[in-house]
Amino acid sequence: MEYSSLLQPGQRLARGTARHLLGHGFVTIEEFVPARGLRVDLMALGPKGEIWIVECKSSRADFVSDAKWSGYLEWCDRYFWSVDAAFPTELLPEETGLILADDYDAEILRMGPEAKLAPGRKKKLLGMFARHAARRLQVLRDPDAERFS
Amino acid sequence: MEYSSLLQPGQRLARGTARHLLGHGFVTIEEFVPARGLRVDLMALGPKGEIWIVECKSSRADFVSDAKWSGYLEWCDRYFWSVDAAFPTELLPEETGLILADDYDAEILRMGPEAKLAPGRKKKLLGMFARHAARRLQVLRDPDAERFS
Repeated sequence: MEYSSLLQPGQRLARGTARHLLGHGFVTIEEFVPARGLRVDLMALGPKGEIWIVECKSSRADFVSDAKWSGYLEWCDRYFWSVDAAFPTELLPEETGLILADDYDAEILRMGPEAKLAPGRKKKLLGMFARHAARRLQVLRDPDAERFS
Repeated sequence: MEYSSLLQPGQRLARGTARHLLGHGFVTIEEFVPARGLRVDLMALGPKGEIWIVECKSSRADFVSDAKWSGYLEWCDRYFWSVDAAFPTELLPEETGLILADDYDAEILRMGPEAKLAPGRKKKLLGMFARHAARRLQVLRDPDAERFS
């Protein structure tokens, strides 16, 4: 069984999207919580400190049931949807970015408009991003570390 | 065979040290390169954005052969050595921090004196820390991502 079949559809889109973003110099973390009650699929950090959020939607139902997405806009410099070729993109608001993805790669079809984060919030988010990534990495290389936190 | 026996002595000290630091709210990454020619064993990021460097020394020879450590001081707010109980600690300069570690845990015996990073350098280091951690994490969850970078 291939590894990707163990992932949920949204996670497979996230994987292809994260690969493509890495090609643009953006590193990514998954399931990042910028504020209580919010959990973004992909948070990307660019070579110049750009912070992008990408929500991965595997179906119309997945999109329609998401009442929180507009709350993510204030936590990034640019916002994107990532969907597969079967997704009805006419559902998506035009003033957002659009990425076409599959399990293995992706393509940016439309840049999300830039709404730059205030420096204070960006600095705070960068610290949270660093802590999230380092902590998950530590627990992967040393599962017992969890007990110490 | 236990996992820790696959690690080098310095890596085992790093593991115990990283666990202990996590208890203080510090997340860590290993083998971080702050500047060309430098590679620090542990870079730690604290809850208030503190940046600490910890060099793990498994033996007298390991310490004596390290001609680079003083170059690390300018890349952190506090600097520490991490050694095991058999290490001859009288070798270590007094104006540095000291951590006693084994494979499983550690204890801070002496705080490194604080020499705060300039805000610009700290911001840059924080971005590098975040990118290092996120990138390693991505390659662990998706080894094929390496091809895209």
